[in-house]
Amino acid sequence: MQTSFINIENIRNDFPILKRKVHKDKPLVYFDNAATTQKPIQVIESISNYYLNYNSNIHRAVHELAEEATLAYETTRDKIAKFINAKNREEIVFVRGTTEAINLVAYAWARQNINKDDIIVTTEYEHHSNIVPWQLVTKEKGAKLEYIGVDDNGELILDHLDKYLATGKVKLVTFSQMSNVLGTITNSEEIVKRCKKYGARVLIDGAQSVPHMKVDLQKLDCDFFAFSAHKMLGPTGVGVLWARKELLQEMVPFNGGGDMIREVHKYETTWNDLPYKFEAGTPNIADVIGFSAALDYLDKIGMDKVREHEIELTKYALDKLSQMKGIILYGPKDATKRGGVISFNLGDIHPHDLATIIDEDGIAIRSGHHCAQVLMERLDVSATSRASFYIYNTKEEVDVFIKSLNRAKELFKI
Amino acid sequence: MQTSFINIENIRNDFPILKRKVHKDKPLVYFDNAATTQKPIQVIESISNYYLNYNSNIHRAVHELAEEATLAYETTRDKIAKFINAKNREEIVFVRGTTEAINLVAYAWARQNINKDDIIVTTEYEHHSNIVPWQLVTKEKGAKLEYIGVDDNGELILDHLDKYLATGKVKLVTFSQMSNVLGTITNSEEIVKRCKKYGARVLIDGAQSVPHMKVDLQKLDCDFFAFSAHKMLGPTGVGVLWARKELLQEMVPFNGGGDMIREVHKYETTWNDLPYKFEAGTPNIADVIGFSAALDYLDKIGMDKVREHEIELTKYALDKLSQMKGIILYGPKDATKRGGVISFNLGDIHPHDLATIIDEDGIAIRSGHHCAQVLMERLDVSATSRASFYIYNTKEEVDVFIKSLNRAKELFKI
Repeated sequence: MQTSFINIENIRNDFPILKRKVHKDKPLVYFDNAATTQKPIQVIESISNYYLNYNSNIHRAVHELAEEATLAYETTRDKIAKFINAKNREEIVFVRGTTEAINLVAYAWARQNINKDDIIVTTEYEHHSNIVPWQLVTKEKGAKLEYIGVDDNGELILDHLDKYLATGKVKLVTFSQMSNVLGTITNSEEIVKRCKKYGARVLIDGAQSVPHMKVDLQKLDCDFFAFSAHKMLGPTGVGVLWARKELLQEMVPFNGGGDMIREVHKYETTWNDLPYKFEAGTPNIADVIGFSAALDYLDKIGMDKVREHEIELTKYALDKLSQMKGIILYGPKDATKRGGVISFNLGDIHPHDLATIIDEDGIAIRSGHHCAQVLMERLDVSATSRASFYIYNTKEEVDVFIKSLNRAKELFKI
Repeated sequence: MQTSFINIENIRNDFPILKRKVHKDKPLVYFDNAATTQKPIQVIESISNYYLNYNSNIHRAVHELAEEATLAYETTRDKIAKFINAKNREEIVFVRGTTEAINLVAYAWARQNINKDDIIVTTEYEHHSNIVPWQLVTKEKGAKLEYIGVDDNGELILDHLDKYLATGKVKLVTFSQMSNVLGTITNSEEIVKRCKKYGARVLIDGAQSVPHMKVDLQKLDCDFFAFSAHKMLGPTGVGVLWARKELLQEMVPFNGGGDMIREVHKYETTWNDLPYKFEAGTPNIADVIGFSAALDYLDKIGMDKVREHEIELTKYALDKLSQMKGIILYGPKDATKRGGVISFNLGDIHPHDLATIIDEDGIAIRSGHHCAQVLMERLDVSATSRASFYIYNTKEEVDVFIKSLNRAKELFKI
């Protein structure tokens, strides 16, 4: 039970949930990793250990528990900076998740920098979290929201970007480094390069990329970057906004409250240093600490191996699926150009029905619009089914999945 | 080891951290509960159990794990509604904590409803989280921020409120139901009654009250109410905004993203039903579920008993402390008018030094401005020491605390 790159059996032993049966006696096949991944025992125990042994509020007390908790919390920040190769630890802001990170930029940067008739450019394959905040800002400011289109191979049409940039009015370009539906890996460095020429800022949604491939922020050279812990073995409720130090310094605060201030007087207040200026109130201490264990886990495997494993598994699955009569597969055909997420439709079976049928066989996939309705409109479908893989998934599980799809085909006479 | 109201020994057995020693061999005396409380094993196991057995993203999938996780998450919402006697479950919005709840109101309600020359009234004993968001809004809108003063007994001077209300310009009055420094229990119902006469909306910060006394929102009759799980045995990273249904309906969204929308098109979007309109992105699923176990735990004890226990403990501590030469105690003298939080200064020992000394004896208290610098200015001090109690604290621990303070007095020759 392994690909060429990872000893999956060892890894699976670290994930207690994978031993679980669903619907009484069906072994769980968890293919819903683009929504959230499972957690290894190391992460679960790291959270318990915090509550069992050193739970305390942080930053503002001198007692021993507080010192231990503060150290563990801040150590996670260092690990993240290293994981994504950020230059400065103070550029790492803890948030609830990718969604909050993007909204923070919308409130604290865009609302100060976007004016009437300015353009924000996003893409047709964005998650709602990278569309709705920009709809709100552009509407408020009388600015425009434009979209980079998606071609029939599931890749961005960069000519569209050039056209918008040429107007000289683009202030921000925002896109996901990996599509959560098509799996497409965006040519991010090329986009950043083109944007720089026109002085447009770039935000990258790394929710689907950071968990699955090596990300190097200094190489990417973008301005803002967002991702979530829960999609990379970490706990729910923690995410990261990275932004260039000079931008964070210029930006107004987002939430006001404790820890983000230096001095509060009745009518005037001064802000704390970075990154605390953007971390108001008691943060999600336990889960930030749990995230540390997730980073350690991925580091131990190595992100290159994670990526290679997923390419092999995706190739294996795409090969099998493409032989299936009546299937429509979305996204790039080449597994090296996409992540381990496969969206498809099977004949005229509604994705919800399909997901329900294969759930009976213990297989967890997602069906629906995947928070990407603009892309659904582009693909001219209301929904797709989506299987998405991670380090603990196996070729044997793909076989079970294919078998279950064939059972669905029989049921629906396709 | 008990007060008249609670069998503390049984309770303490549920809190593994209380068996821990600090500084090698000192039993932990945890008196920093106003910052965050410890967690019973039931809460810790509830979080682990989620990750071990049914971790999944919620709301948007049909597979078995997702259904179990969604049910557990939504059940917490029902329990909270019951716990604070809210009329409707859809009035319960999950946020990161009290700070985010207040900022949500500032962004999604106040920025739409506060205009030039309008007045927002807060109080001198607020936490920064209930001051800074209003400074930001009033500055942005050209409105005014006014303060209800605090008298020498640590209680609000309601004449100030009347004076502001009489201008007819007050749109919002916001205050904490229990001061995090003085322990003062605000006469909330009286304030709400006065505000209603003038059509002013009322926001109550319940961060310090909900964990320590019975709170009945239908009786309080306010418009917005905020509190945090981590101050009431629950995990970090979860809080609640309650608001009247009709206000939530009128309000614009706060964060844009997944789950808060009904339909997203390229240039227009419609919002989801309450409360989801305000819960963008993957929420802190595990910790919301953990919060459930905390509510069960408090329910089992009974909030009346929690309150009685704290009154008895606070009275015991105030009696001992007030006999101490050179001590200044802040807040109401009468333990029935305050929560289990005692702020003080001892001679000219700096609070940080005092906290450091008694930490050597295993006692965790907090020192500093307690995120209440406006109150520190009112009290004419830069900082205080603060001991705060919860259900697992004992009179024996108070004795250890008093003994340690006496040791500090000797060291500093007071």
